[in-house]
Amino acid sequence: MMIIMRADASQEEVAQVISRVESHGLRVHLSKGEERVIIGAIGDGRAVQRDQFALLAGVDRVVPISRPYKLTSREFSPANTIFPLDGVSVGGNGIVIIAGPCSVESRTQTLEIALAVKEAGAHAIRGGAYKPRTSPYAFQGLGEAGLEILAEVREITGLPVVTEAMSVEQVPLVTKYADVIQLGARNMQNFSLLHAAGESQHPVLLKRGMSATVEELLMAAEYILSHGNRRVILCERGIRTYETSTRNTTDINAIPVIKSLSHLPVMLDPSHSTGNWEYVTAIARAGVAAGADGLIIEVHNHPEEALSDGGQSLKPERFAELVKQTRAIAQAIGRDIAVPVHETAVGSPA
Amino acid sequence: MMIIMRADASQEEVAQVISRVESHGLRVHLSKGEERVIIGAIGDGRAVQRDQFALLAGVDRVVPISRPYKLTSREFSPANTIFPLDGVSVGGNGIVIIAGPCSVESRTQTLEIALAVKEAGAHAIRGGAYKPRTSPYAFQGLGEAGLEILAEVREITGLPVVTEAMSVEQVPLVTKYADVIQLGARNMQNFSLLHAAGESQHPVLLKRGMSATVEELLMAAEYILSHGNRRVILCERGIRTYETSTRNTTDINAIPVIKSLSHLPVMLDPSHSTGNWEYVTAIARAGVAAGADGLIIEVHNHPEEALSDGGQSLKPERFAELVKQTRAIAQAIGRDIAVPVHETAVGSPA
Amino acid sequence: MMIIMRADASQEEVAQVISRVESHGLRVHLSKGEERVIIGAIGDGRAVQRDQFALLAGVDRVVPISRPYKLTSREFSPANTIFPLDGVSVGGNGIVIIAGPCSVESRTQTLEIALAVKEAGAHAIRGGAYKPRTSPYAFQGLGEAGLEILAEVREITGLPVVTEAMSVEQVPLVTKYADVIQLGARNMQNFSLLHAAGESQHPVLLKRGMSATVEELLMAAEYILSHGNRRVILCERGIRTYETSTRNTTDINAIPVIKSLSHLPVMLDPSHSTGNWEYVTAIARAGVAAGADGLIIEVHNHPEEALSDGGQSLKPERFAELVKQTRAIAQAIGRDIAVPVHETAVGSPA
Amino acid sequence: MMIIMRADASQEEVAQVISRVESHGLRVHLSKGEERVIIGAIGDGRAVQRDQFALLAGVDRVVPISRPYKLTSREFSPANTIFPLDGVSVGGNGIVIIAGPCSVESRTQTLEIALAVKEAGAHAIRGGAYKPRTSPYAFQGLGEAGLEILAEVREITGLPVVTEAMSVEQVPLVTKYADVIQLGARNMQNFSLLHAAGESQHPVLLKRGMSATVEELLMAAEYILSHGNRRVILCERGIRTYETSTRNTTDINAIPVIKSLSHLPVMLDPSHSTGNWEYVTAIARAGVAAGADGLIIEVHNHPEEALSDGGQSLKPERFAELVKQTRAIAQAIGRDIAVPVHETAVGSPA
Repeated sequence: MMIIMRADASQEEVAQVISRVESHGLRVHLSKGEERVIIGAIGDGRAVQRDQFALLAGVDRVVPISRPYKLTSREFSPANTIFPLDGVSVGGNGIVIIAGPCSVESRTQTLEIALAVKEAGAHAIRGGAYKPRTSPYAFQGLGEAGLEILAEVREITGLPVVTEAMSVEQVPLVTKYADVIQLGARNMQNFSLLHAAGESQHPVLLKRGMSATVEELLMAAEYILSHGNRRVILCERGIRTYETSTRNTTDINAIPVIKSLSHLPVMLDPSHSTGNWEYVTAIARAGVAAGADGLIIEVHNHPEEALSDGGQSLKPERFAELVKQTRAIAQAIGRDIAVPVHETAVGSPA
Repeated sequence: MMIIMRADASQEEVAQVISRVESHGLRVHLSKGEERVIIGAIGDGRAVQRDQFALLAGVDRVVPISRPYKLTSREFSPANTIFPLDGVSVGGNGIVIIAGPCSVESRTQTLEIALAVKEAGAHAIRGGAYKPRTSPYAFQGLGEAGLEILAEVREITGLPVVTEAMSVEQVPLVTKYADVIQLGARNMQNFSLLHAAGESQHPVLLKRGMSATVEELLMAAEYILSHGNRRVILCERGIRTYETSTRNTTDINAIPVIKSLSHLPVMLDPSHSTGNWEYVTAIARAGVAAGADGLIIEVHNHPEEALSDGGQSLKPERFAELVKQTRAIAQAIGRDIAVPVHETAVGSPA
Repeated sequence: MMIIMRADASQEEVAQVISRVESHGLRVHLSKGEERVIIGAIGDGRAVQRDQFALLAGVDRVVPISRPYKLTSREFSPANTIFPLDGVSVGGNGIVIIAGPCSVESRTQTLEIALAVKEAGAHAIRGGAYKPRTSPYAFQGLGEAGLEILAEVREITGLPVVTEAMSVEQVPLVTKYADVIQLGARNMQNFSLLHAAGESQHPVLLKRGMSATVEELLMAAEYILSHGNRRVILCERGIRTYETSTRNTTDINAIPVIKSLSHLPVMLDPSHSTGNWEYVTAIARAGVAAGADGLIIEVHNHPEEALSDGGQSLKPERFAELVKQTRAIAQAIGRDIAVPVHETAVGSPA
Repeated sequence: MMIIMRADASQEEVAQVISRVESHGLRVHLSKGEERVIIGAIGDGRAVQRDQFALLAGVDRVVPISRPYKLTSREFSPANTIFPLDGVSVGGNGIVIIAGPCSVESRTQTLEIALAVKEAGAHAIRGGAYKPRTSPYAFQGLGEAGLEILAEVREITGLPVVTEAMSVEQVPLVTKYADVIQLGARNMQNFSLLHAAGESQHPVLLKRGMSATVEELLMAAEYILSHGNRRVILCERGIRTYETSTRNTTDINAIPVIKSLSHLPVMLDPSHSTGNWEYVTAIARAGVAAGADGLIIEVHNHPEEALSDGGQSLKPERFAELVKQTRAIAQAIGRDIAVPVHETAVGSPA
């Protein structure tokens, strides 16, 4: 880090900062400008509190040089992280599509939607058994019964399951029933949960917090990777801004930004990032055009009766149209919708 | 709620909406404007998903009439909620001041700070044993050993303890050792934790999420109150905006807004809401001037050696000055710094 | 508008509101709920201040029913507005690309860039003669000399010119030299300038203010349209949010939102909306995928010597690649890059 | 500035950056860390585009060391700027209060309000003759007739006049009739207008843009000061955030921040920063408690009939109470409401 001294800092103050830098095992490089002295602290200072220098007499401010994350960074691991989710590769050239209802409401509803999204080309089913709801009076999910429905639907359809764990004690149950643990936007900095998800060694879909910076998202991923769990999908789901014409503001910039900073796969959730089914398909196209490795889409067979998020859910036929349009975009940039291995297998002789 | 139909809605579409409204046990009131029909749904629609109407054919949008929270609202409970915290009244005319280090680092550090803030006039000690940190490489707190230190410091100083629980499984430990469970900004919508804090029946200091609206803060409190736990302190701690000259933006408006919407006591945390010790005292004065019922202030005996948040921590002598200035402001608006009952007791003869 | 009374409003208060509504020539429709009375004001209340009702005794709040803009709305004019810009149609099926340097720095620089972007497929040249700069010490543009260069470059290349007017007195000059007046983000609510641009009857490219809502952008356009000038292009150029990894946050949602609310053509400026040349092409693709009618792109032959915005400028060869990729995206959604009429003319035999 | 090279930058790339730095007449100071080279550019680089270095091969990023403003900074001018406004000192120990209607609607209305606010203790009258309105259909102000009313009201009451100029051509008229030119939030970066206001040598009240950073506000002031006009009052009027419970979010932090960065007087406009008369008095108290040098308050004798901003206007009797409460706060921090010299004069014998 660089410690920028005030123009009026005394020699003694400079000496004290130098001594403090050295006490952390860092080397000092001194730079004397016309107006001020700048002290470079050389070595890995990631664990040192910047405030420990910023508060010393004569210091103007401290500028970090290294990024605060490491395992998550593309510098650390230049090649894209690619891992299999059931039959498909996540993070590879093929776009992976996860679709399903906001909440698991019943066996019939979930199965009907799963069959429809599979037919349309989805690679995995999503659906919440535990629902984070702003209101204590809203439907809170079916809990373990919902997980059981998801597992049964997987049996029938062959689609892997993505579902949310809202707290540490739900992690074992969710890993038992699901293929991917989803960590929701409100829990992106629930560090206990990040820890548990890391320990689980299960694939994780980590949603960006609604006012998290890209850097904070990468730091949250770092929590998981630092437990040796590298199978992490990052998910842009819209951020909170002053604009009210949509529920959230899709931070489309985040897609190329994250791809440049990190090796992890990045998905877009246009259902939450717009909050309105009318805009979901256009923004799904935009996400793929911008470089997203996948999409997560809310689909409901009867949106007007959904117990949550009906307004942003596509009907199955509209979802099929989304897949079709998304495929055209993917092909226009030299990619494609991912092809499940088992489909290929089915098609091959003997 | 009011369901506003599109200008081109057909009679049949209007009839379908009416039928849906009635199917939820609500009564219909029809209003025909020059351009459009508006359908009033009369009755308690709090549990009904608005999307269930918004998605019907011919509907333009749905406008809620009632507020989504109930127990938290001043309409429900017009008088201020006041409850004792050890010797002082929270939510009464006296301003309550909670002070202490960001993290419990050691017995000596915590005790030294506790004695200093008590001397200066604080009513309770704060300090984190479990620390939510953006980086997995930063100090994560002493855990239960930190709670033990806090309990011992309470024994010695008589100051009640406020400390954070970061997850459901920490709630029993925190309630065992502390007088108030703090729920941090990153956990304001950790609904499992809100549930556990509600169940605990322990006093709760609920910090506003860094991009939570006032309404969402009140909904989070509603989770706690809906478990019969009314001893909730709301805490403004700055919100995330585009401005970078301070760590957060103190939403000073939120203080009179919350006081008008809710009966719960409201505190301000100017340490986090500014992120810079130089501005803490000015903003503490502003908070009391705006009507806050209390302050929560980070104090450290050696900020430049603090393991977290040193930059926003006041030294004890500056904290003493803050209390003095805050007292003057409180008195200027007909309030005062709260007087602990036991102090009065000590002062009274026989 | 709907005037929602407080639960405790008296009959007299209701009567006073009714009388006030009627005094504005609006009709009253009364709706009595279980808890409260709602008063509908029927008729065109667009010119009536909502506060004139909101402040009356017993009123809780006022909910507008109609949108505040009219001429700009798709309701008013369902078909897309399409108008010619030199040889190409703006707002039609073809994507229109405007490209050029941030600032006109010299004749040589501007001409060289214009020839390059024309070669790559751009339909118009952009370049600022008057530059709004945050710092008074930064390059402020060449002024009229810059306009003369642009006019000469148009003579040579045949490309129409888009350039900014920063104040009312610059409007006559800019309309004399340029084909489209650009109104910059900082001036989106410079109402004197909107008025002058409307009066000019010249095509206008209106950039969204950096913290303007979509509704405010449409209201700003309404200022221009209300002077009878319908040739307005709306331009998303990124909004200000808390995220700092890019200069602005591209509000990609705004593209389908505006297309649904208004008949005016919508362009995207990914140079400003990202602020970093590395992300411009990905976001240009996303913009077209989301439904934008055009792009405005900063191109510089020597970005590292540019007097402004070098960091977000593409080199000509990268711009050519952007056009190629954008064309593939456009074709994937059934559109194409616009074909200038004169090119067709040139290509057709006698 | 410090130019931070990438870890993989070649020696040749370092050499090229050094050569470029030297070509701008700046001296180079080289610092070799373990991972990367950092190149310090020593000298006044304020006029040099950072992008000219950021885009060179091998450069990671460029960190500015100096602040971009100079004349506005407290470093440049350590003592508070204090100047007289008619009889009172702006920027001194006394709090200056400017009050009046949002818009000048008529002679009677303006005079009645002026007399009332003078009686209550205001030092100047505010009122708009030119009104920036989001809607072209809303009342746009009386124009010069409004200025004449203000001038007449000054004659009668002795109160100096603060009123807005919305464009360059209005500056001569406004300076003719008014004592202080107000530049509105939407025009904070209308650089033509800043230029004209600087040239006028008239006192200026510069409102912060609704999404301007503190640094941008100081840069806007720098435009005025760079024309030799030092009589600039900065005004916090709330910023745009995601919070919707108030019209804007009062950035109370900005008050101590600006006081620490600049020598210019700072006022708060709680009418706009809250947008709701119910919160104005609490936030006015907070502003003074935080260190504001003055307040600007909207007052209307009949808010429910106001042609603009009625909802945030205080009635005269409530304004009188605001002055009383504000005085108590001012005294609590060792200040007071400013005493006009002429009042003292009137009161003194002989």
